[in-house]
Amino acid sequence: MDNQPLPAARQRLLDAGLELLLERGYHGVGIQAVLDASLTPKGSFYHHFRDKEDFALQVIDAYMAGVHGALDVSLADVSVPPLERVRGFFGLVAGGYAKDGYLGCLLGGLGQELSGVSPVFAQRIDGCLSYIADRLAEPLDEARSVGDLPPSTDPKALATRLVDCWEGAALRSRLSRDPAPLREMLDFFFHAATRE
Amino acid sequence: MDNQPLPAARQRLLDAGLELLLERGYHGVGIQAVLDASLTPKGSFYHHFRDKEDFALQVIDAYMAGVHGALDVSLADVSVPPLERVRGFFGLVAGGYAKDGYLGCLLGGLGQELSGVSPVFAQRIDGCLSYIADRLAEPLDEARSVGDLPPSTDPKALATRLVDCWEGAALRSRLSRDPAPLREMLDFFFHAATRE
Repeated sequence: MDNQPLPAARQRLLDAGLELLLERGYHGVGIQAVLDASLTPKGSFYHHFRDKEDFALQVIDAYMAGVHGALDVSLADVSVPPLERVRGFFGLVAGGYAKDGYLGCLLGGLGQELSGVSPVFAQRIDGCLSYIADRLAEPLDEARSVGDLPPSTDPKALATRLVDCWEGAALRSRLSRDPAPLREMLDFFFHAATRE
Repeated sequence: MDNQPLPAARQRLLDAGLELLLERGYHGVGIQAVLDASLTPKGSFYHHFRDKEDFALQVIDAYMAGVHGALDVSLADVSVPPLERVRGFFGLVAGGYAKDGYLGCLLGGLGQELSGVSPVFAQRIDGCLSYIADRLAEPLDEARSVGDLPPSTDPKALATRLVDCWEGAALRSRLSRDPAPLREMLDFFFHAATRE
């Protein structure tokens, strides 16, 4: 990749943006801090991104590419029972949080900070959470058909609750820099969901 | 109150701060915007608040005074079954969200935005959420003793999960400007909690 400086610079900018936006939030990060952290000149930033908003939206896309990967990896193995696949997904996500020092979820962070004033970010992030719930609804539906969830379960509604509750647990984990709220929420949720 | 200009100014500043911080976040609000919205001169701001951080922390205190009031009102009436008292509390909170146009919870908003860089805000907001859970644990404990919750219920842990999940639902409600995630989370939670 050394002879492809522009894609490499774009990736470095996105990587730095992901780390900085997660830690400091949108308004807490200036473009200069991203340039400094990624050792990238300003011209390169504006070659790849229209402005800071465009940059942050592309950072969200990059974050979601990671989420897609985690969904694909954890949900693909149909030899694993469906509820374990769903927990496996959150295990991968929590592993990512651990690497960041338990700073929580970029979607929740930017969603809280920006959605009061920016319909663009509100809709984008709401769409990301809906996408994750849609993907999780499939194994939850399968769990219902094999009897691991009660017949009355609405898989889409259950997946939506799960994602929403996870975001709350991620906030709490961020506040306390502690993985316990994540694990305890999942324990409660899966215990609860499997009861009639 | 017209002849008590200083306390009135402090209250006006806190009211404006609550509205502005909820909508725009900490970094999205300058002191000048608070002065403009509250029709208050700058000298008055610095008479009451050391700086913007001190102001925001006092806005959180004012927000929590409202939460304390909602807890007192909803939990006091012991003629109401304990789980209904707990739901009543969230009903009052959701009523507040409705008045704001479903902008979610100030604790979640500032918690997400600031806790990556500010241990002061992280600890304060984590403490606020713990306080709410402590208060809710009492009626949940009572619900267990009268058989409305399974004997295996850990009231404190259940209250903590409830507050955490509520924060996630509040984020989702803020993203979509819709009360549905709040109601659906509570429906799921209370249905789940009452099962063995």
